[in-house]
Amino acid sequence: MIKNSWYVAANPAELADGRILARTILGTPVALYRLEGQVVAAYDRCPHRFAPLSIGKVVEGSLQCGYHGARFDKTGKCISVPGQRFAPARTCALQTFPAVERCGFIWIWMGDDVAAAGGNTLPETFAIAESSAWDGGNGLFESLQANFMLINDNLFDITHADFVHSDSFAGRQCLLYRTMDAGSEYQNGKMVHAVSERGITLRLLDRNVGNACGPFFRQQVALGLGVPEYDGDIDSEFEVIWTPPSFTSFRVTVNPSGDRAARFSSVVLHAVTPESERTSHYFFRALRDYAHSPQLSAAFVDAMTAAFNQDKVVIELQQARIGVADLFEQAPAAFAGDVVQLRARKLIEKMRAAETTEP
Amino acid sequence: MIKNSWYVAANPAELADGRILARTILGTPVALYRLEGQVVAAYDRCPHRFAPLSIGKVVEGSLQCGYHGARFDKTGKCISVPGQRFAPARTCALQTFPAVERCGFIWIWMGDDVAAAGGNTLPETFAIAESSAWDGGNGLFESLQANFMLINDNLFDITHADFVHSDSFAGRQCLLYRTMDAGSEYQNGKMVHAVSERGITLRLLDRNVGNACGPFFRQQVALGLGVPEYDGDIDSEFEVIWTPPSFTSFRVTVNPSGDRAARFSSVVLHAVTPESERTSHYFFRALRDYAHSPQLSAAFVDAMTAAFNQDKVVIELQQARIGVADLFEQAPAAFAGDVVQLRARKLIEKMRAAETTEP
Amino acid sequence: MIKNSWYVAANPAELADGRILARTILGTPVALYRLEGQVVAAYDRCPHRFAPLSIGKVVEGSLQCGYHGARFDKTGKCISVPGQRFAPARTCALQTFPAVERCGFIWIWMGDDVAAAGGNTLPETFAIAESSAWDGGNGLFESLQANFMLINDNLFDITHADFVHSDSFAGRQCLLYRTMDAGSEYQNGKMVHAVSERGITLRLLDRNVGNACGPFFRQQVALGLGVPEYDGDIDSEFEVIWTPPSFTSFRVTVNPSGDRAARFSSVVLHAVTPESERTSHYFFRALRDYAHSPQLSAAFVDAMTAAFNQDKVVIELQQARIGVADLFEQAPAAFAGDVVQLRARKLIEKMRAAETTEP
Repeated sequence: MIKNSWYVAANPAELADGRILARTILGTPVALYRLEGQVVAAYDRCPHRFAPLSIGKVVEGSLQCGYHGARFDKTGKCISVPGQRFAPARTCALQTFPAVERCGFIWIWMGDDVAAAGGNTLPETFAIAESSAWDGGNGLFESLQANFMLINDNLFDITHADFVHSDSFAGRQCLLYRTMDAGSEYQNGKMVHAVSERGITLRLLDRNVGNACGPFFRQQVALGLGVPEYDGDIDSEFEVIWTPPSFTSFRVTVNPSGDRAARFSSVVLHAVTPESERTSHYFFRALRDYAHSPQLSAAFVDAMTAAFNQDKVVIELQQARIGVADLFEQAPAAFAGDVVQLRARKLIEKMRAAETTEP
Repeated sequence: MIKNSWYVAANPAELADGRILARTILGTPVALYRLEGQVVAAYDRCPHRFAPLSIGKVVEGSLQCGYHGARFDKTGKCISVPGQRFAPARTCALQTFPAVERCGFIWIWMGDDVAAAGGNTLPETFAIAESSAWDGGNGLFESLQANFMLINDNLFDITHADFVHSDSFAGRQCLLYRTMDAGSEYQNGKMVHAVSERGITLRLLDRNVGNACGPFFRQQVALGLGVPEYDGDIDSEFEVIWTPPSFTSFRVTVNPSGDRAARFSSVVLHAVTPESERTSHYFFRALRDYAHSPQLSAAFVDAMTAAFNQDKVVIELQQARIGVADLFEQAPAAFAGDVVQLRARKLIEKMRAAETTEP
Repeated sequence: MIKNSWYVAANPAELADGRILARTILGTPVALYRLEGQVVAAYDRCPHRFAPLSIGKVVEGSLQCGYHGARFDKTGKCISVPGQRFAPARTCALQTFPAVERCGFIWIWMGDDVAAAGGNTLPETFAIAESSAWDGGNGLFESLQANFMLINDNLFDITHADFVHSDSFAGRQCLLYRTMDAGSEYQNGKMVHAVSERGITLRLLDRNVGNACGPFFRQQVALGLGVPEYDGDIDSEFEVIWTPPSFTSFRVTVNPSGDRAARFSSVVLHAVTPESERTSHYFFRALRDYAHSPQLSAAFVDAMTAAFNQDKVVIELQQARIGVADLFEQAPAAFAGDVVQLRARKLIEKMRAAETTEP
């Protein structure tokens, strides 16, 4: 697990109405809550008798332990103990973690001093979630029984769509993944990929797809045009941008073939947060630049949830077969295109090495 | 775990109607049953093929294994094997443990020779359960997922009542725990404590409590007086006597303020029995010296059960956060009053040391 | 666990209708399916990304992985990868195991080269399952929580019938197991046993059993005669033949006392397959040489299932009490007759030694 990274800790709605959310992140139990308008992430363990603070309450601008009533301010300082004149501020400090609400998610930093880790910022691709041009909603799979890299891999290798998502995302375009070229410019009928320090980009342009794609793509055209159904031919673009350690932006742009004026895009931002070595939380935010409406946003989240439930079955069984060792320690066979997964792993190894060699 | 102590193994009703009860105590599976009017506690494993004897039957004054039918008398001697002329008494002896029914509980001794451990007797505070002046009933939480000391701690530190039991036992008195003095004489508005080899005593006197206490206390006055409700002021006394390793008597005495002739007491005897290093059985017997009636006894047990279900949530999550190490190995913060818990742990350490250094 | 043996992997109906069955055998996850009329047993793990192949599909004479669609022929050779020109046959070979359908079961060989292990064949006693003179059906207990030897032991020591199966198989005959003699010829009122390299045989003849047996035996006479009930006296024979490591044929022959012309036999073939060190699959095939009918076969399987559910309770609790060590490492007491179980264990030890000492 990479420690020095921002991770998504929660969807904002999970902290609504004074709720204190308990969630394990990078092996550490965390309590997440809002205090005086600010998101606070604290170690979910009272320093006194180790009761989880997530069963406490937010009381008068402080977090109150649900066992003996000690109160902590938003910096984690103990400000009162019932029946006791002075609060043991020095000995009873609650550990907190940097936390922030941005780009439609609640983020947490569990690593070394966040200021010292200067360059590390939120993934650039997630910025569109702050633009009003995009409408959408959030989804979550909690405590998925798989290492975070298996979910990253799932988002990379879209050839699985034909087998796992034949009812939605399948399509001839997916197979181009196996024969991709280097490059970052769209070329019709080709997938190109580019690798840099900042991540990996896959781009695909496929004009006149006709029936050779799953129903999802023409539905997007119909919704964009505001018609019940669209039967004509379409042009499609995919853009997958992966930012280490576990952020993927997946953009699908479609238009009626040849009609570049009626282009409609959807973007799903995927964020995988390690819960432990072999379990992960998977968050997503599904966005559209067309047909803004809460109903459609909810339906889009539901559709994504249904699709990922198909992946979940495979990924969790895959983890069960892999067992405690890493997949790549067990000499898996390689298919064409898998090189991208290997490059991603190298970028992650580099991050890991940087963490462990720093003084 | 302390081995050389009597522990509560069962509530008497659990052995009714010839039932053979299976329960793990100090890590050992035990079968408990009545044979010829005597309580027998045996290793719950037939010496022949290791089937649990608790799935057997009591037949003709013996315990019969449910697999191959071997029979054992109340000393554990094998007295017959079906189809075989002689019973293998020498090689097939069933281990039994001293067991006795006293003070409203079934007790077991799992340690070294009980006679040799001369001084170790049942806790004195439990004797009132044999007096007809007290009416009551038993309760049980089986296999609570926590080390026995966390339950002891819970009974000690009554400041938790305001946060865990705001609907019953809360009250201003509880907070006096944080500022207690040494002593064993009741002093109004104070809590005093005394520590000796035989245990720890806490005493509290609080006159004219008025509304500054939870509903439980005035209910006790009303029940004692035989009236539907009591709205007047009350005086209250608490007496908590803890006897190592895990016995707590908790006495609450109330009277209408100033009227010492109308005093009503309830006593709850708490007995915690380690099941394993990190799981425990928690037995209690709830007694009253007023308003004897089976209905009221049952209601009192139900109320205690409801209240302890509130503790259970906290204690089990507390154990989860503590993990496999001991709480005090992890440098918890100390609040005023916690010194009593530390003294209790010292008494237990002394018992443990005595066990391990004896020849 | 003995590796060099054929084991029952499945009942044939489990592979019906193109189903791919997932089952762990000797600690290895196996996918079982029919391909072009042949039973195939493959390692249930795609060589590419380790998804279980049992969630795939049989497509055009090949097994298709459910994740990325790689296809494997019946030898395990990878014959295609979607979107890729050449299949990586050399690097992506799927391990397969010899498998065969015989004697009413699907068998698998998980050991060293099956040809080299020449002498090892299916148990001879199972051959009757291929004869049309016998009618019957199959049953299965999957992932029984016990080492395979505890199930073998259960089939050996029939004295348990009086205690575990008092409603069916009980009877005075069972007790003769405790006083058996050496020999292989039936003698009235005696049980004899013979041990050889090839296994252990128990034989019992008991004429004029009258009421001294459970209801099962006279039911068999009634069914054989085609009458609703049979109240007369009966003669009975038992023959138990155990073939290492885990195959037991249990034959019960009955006739109205003295009437050797009206003899009716039932045979239950028991096959225990280790799933792991302490879990097992238990298969059986229940056969009769009388009253052929699908209804009666189903009823016979149901009756056997009900009876073994009684054993299951005992055996799984027995395993829980035994724990991680072997029963015989814990000095169990011996009853008369247990010598046969010990002889069986010696034959198994010999097989184990042969496996580990071979070059």
